[in-house]
Amino acid sequence: MTHDLTPSDSLGGAIMSQIEQLATYSELANGLSRRYLSPEHRKANDQVGDWMQSAGMNVRQDEIGNIIGRYEGTSEGLPAVMIGSHLDTVVMAGKYDGMLGVTTGIACVEELNRQGKRLPFAIEIIGFADEEGVRFQSTYLGSRALTGNFDTALLERKDEHGITMAQAMTEFGLDPLRVGDAARQKKDILAYLELHIEQGPVLESENLPVGVVTSIAGANRMLITLEGVAGHAGTVPMGMRQDALAVAAECILAVETVCSEGDNVVGTVGKLTTEPGAVNVIPGDVQFTLDLRAAKDENRIKALEKVSRLMVEAARRRGVKLTLENTHQAVSVPCDDNIMNFIDQAITESGWPVRRLPSGAGHDAAAMAEMVPAGMLFIRCKDGISHSPAEDITIEDALAGARVMFKLLSNLDFSS
Amino acid sequence: MTHDLTPSDSLGGAIMSQIEQLATYSELANGLSRRYLSPEHRKANDQVGDWMQSAGMNVRQDEIGNIIGRYEGTSEGLPAVMIGSHLDTVVMAGKYDGMLGVTTGIACVEELNRQGKRLPFAIEIIGFADEEGVRFQSTYLGSRALTGNFDTALLERKDEHGITMAQAMTEFGLDPLRVGDAARQKKDILAYLELHIEQGPVLESENLPVGVVTSIAGANRMLITLEGVAGHAGTVPMGMRQDALAVAAECILAVETVCSEGDNVVGTVGKLTTEPGAVNVIPGDVQFTLDLRAAKDENRIKALEKVSRLMVEAARRRGVKLTLENTHQAVSVPCDDNIMNFIDQAITESGWPVRRLPSGAGHDAAAMAEMVPAGMLFIRCKDGISHSPAEDITIEDALAGARVMFKLLSNLDFSS
Repeated sequence: MTHDLTPSDSLGGAIMSQIEQLATYSELANGLSRRYLSPEHRKANDQVGDWMQSAGMNVRQDEIGNIIGRYEGTSEGLPAVMIGSHLDTVVMAGKYDGMLGVTTGIACVEELNRQGKRLPFAIEIIGFADEEGVRFQSTYLGSRALTGNFDTALLERKDEHGITMAQAMTEFGLDPLRVGDAARQKKDILAYLELHIEQGPVLESENLPVGVVTSIAGANRMLITLEGVAGHAGTVPMGMRQDALAVAAECILAVETVCSEGDNVVGTVGKLTTEPGAVNVIPGDVQFTLDLRAAKDENRIKALEKVSRLMVEAARRRGVKLTLENTHQAVSVPCDDNIMNFIDQAITESGWPVRRLPSGAGHDAAAMAEMVPAGMLFIRCKDGISHSPAEDITIEDALAGARVMFKLLSNLDFSS
Repeated sequence: MTHDLTPSDSLGGAIMSQIEQLATYSELANGLSRRYLSPEHRKANDQVGDWMQSAGMNVRQDEIGNIIGRYEGTSEGLPAVMIGSHLDTVVMAGKYDGMLGVTTGIACVEELNRQGKRLPFAIEIIGFADEEGVRFQSTYLGSRALTGNFDTALLERKDEHGITMAQAMTEFGLDPLRVGDAARQKKDILAYLELHIEQGPVLESENLPVGVVTSIAGANRMLITLEGVAGHAGTVPMGMRQDALAVAAECILAVETVCSEGDNVVGTVGKLTTEPGAVNVIPGDVQFTLDLRAAKDENRIKALEKVSRLMVEAARRRGVKLTLENTHQAVSVPCDDNIMNFIDQAITESGWPVRRLPSGAGHDAAAMAEMVPAGMLFIRCKDGISHSPAEDITIEDALAGARVMFKLLSNLDFSS
């Protein structure tokens, strides 16, 4: 059974206006920063709760601090399609990362409510409490609590001011001992849908407003330490040097070459430090980070092995000691095939070509996929920029996202 | 006319003992640091003055703070051969850089005095007040004042605590208005000789205690700024990046390749910073330093042009903006041919093979060469290390240096 629903053009403006409102809840005066369990998180939850209520939803805050609005289906208590994203931000963040998915969900329900329509499933809109992991250095706190995968050891982890997560939850009005109650039953959730800005330049470069996410990339992060020999820049002949920075330079170019040859692989050396770091001293010690991701795990592992081998060779050839430390590893999470097909269809019916692409960034959908079928819709963003005050989208693209999401809700069918 | 003088074996021990004593005059508790016009500079000058007096010299401190001892020749008031080096140090310095040249000079005069010998020229031993330029960020202060090339605008330059050089001189007991009186007449100085640790690994690798310096390298220093585009490490495909660090990596390897192909050219990227400098962000902005030196200016200029061209090409190819800023430039200073020949002879007569090599580091001899014939004798140092507490030489090499210097004084002949 399908529903033929047409969303109003006013949805774009409604979404953008909510985005602006949410951006005012910031811990910083000169930019946007909203960490988990901060007073600004409180304000954002309260505001989102109000909007949910106005859109015809029953609102509650769960035991980890997620804010959830429920719009019943054709009858009370049906399993729900969950639509969401996160309400926390990085430091000096953009306004759309996370928030766009929550506000678009609310706009869709508001439209359904205005039209007096009920679907054969409930809809729940969720604003996750923490996805970025800025405050306690652990990501997906909100979605992991919801799927029952929250690690309670994290409750003792401290923020930069020495406040534990348990203390911060108590101050926020949550009971840390009851965090397990945030977990939901698999049978109660049919699917999880997340709309998010792409955070990359692909859609923009292809002149497309929307895209279908195929998977959330697996990732490796490493810290590479190089120990060479410092020396006077003027007195050590080139052939007698053990220059740690020259090794690092080879490694950086190896990462670039290997990842460029890979299939949907990206590799980045984002941070590099030189010691002693003086104009007239050969760098004896260098540290740099490596972030390597791929849509498919086998491609990531292949690239990582190749990069590691080239790095070890470069160091050995120059008599420099190389140490690789794994700091993070996550496997790739494929999106649900069935949901992807529904998203394709909604895009096609909205009049745009279907573009499937992997997500290099992590999203709550990755945590949700551990329990329920998950799908993601990407929205074009300006210059591919995110995690920056320069993050931007157009009102037309906000509307395009809402239209596709609205069509998707109309098309979704879990009867088979 | 030649003098056949044989130095005593005890010179090595005398030099090393004075080196240890000087190392105790430090502004730091955990290492050696002695900046220009510090209380420790005062102590070092007083101590060196005492040693000079005991060695039979008349001692004075000049108007920039150099300490000078004069040992008359066969008659009073003859032109002098000047032997010296500097008494200031870098932060966390070694004990030998500079001080070895001063103490070896004193040891040689002490030996002459013990033997009751007078030469057909006076000898002046000089402990220069500032060569490293740590305190006021300008080098060769002592030797430039002596040659009349001191820039009096420097008197208003401030140290890190906001104290001007003029204030510091007054506190030290010097009159900044009389700094010009430190300048000497060319006719009164026959030659300048400097003994110094090599600060590089060449002599050690060839198992030689001493070497003859051919020239003091010319140098260029640059600050290179790269402006690319920062972006999410997971979402920007490799082919769409403008990664400033990848450009820097190419530049670092270009410096290495070009300098390795050059004739007595060395090039170093000593300091590099990445912005924003996060594991998951493509570096949008990178800055790095370049230090390029060569024994011959034409080789340095050729290498610099080649490196600059390759750097500009690497940046252009990747759509990154490159800015080159010249921060320092110095031409190469050749040592005096006649003096080099005398040093060769002294080394040969001392029983070692002659090894001529350029100095990649700067020395007071470079400033002195603007006025008088200058020559330098290098002493092997452990692992080529300097500017570090690990700087070291053996007592045997200290003696070897003193012997060659003693022979050199014996052989010097300015009669032709």
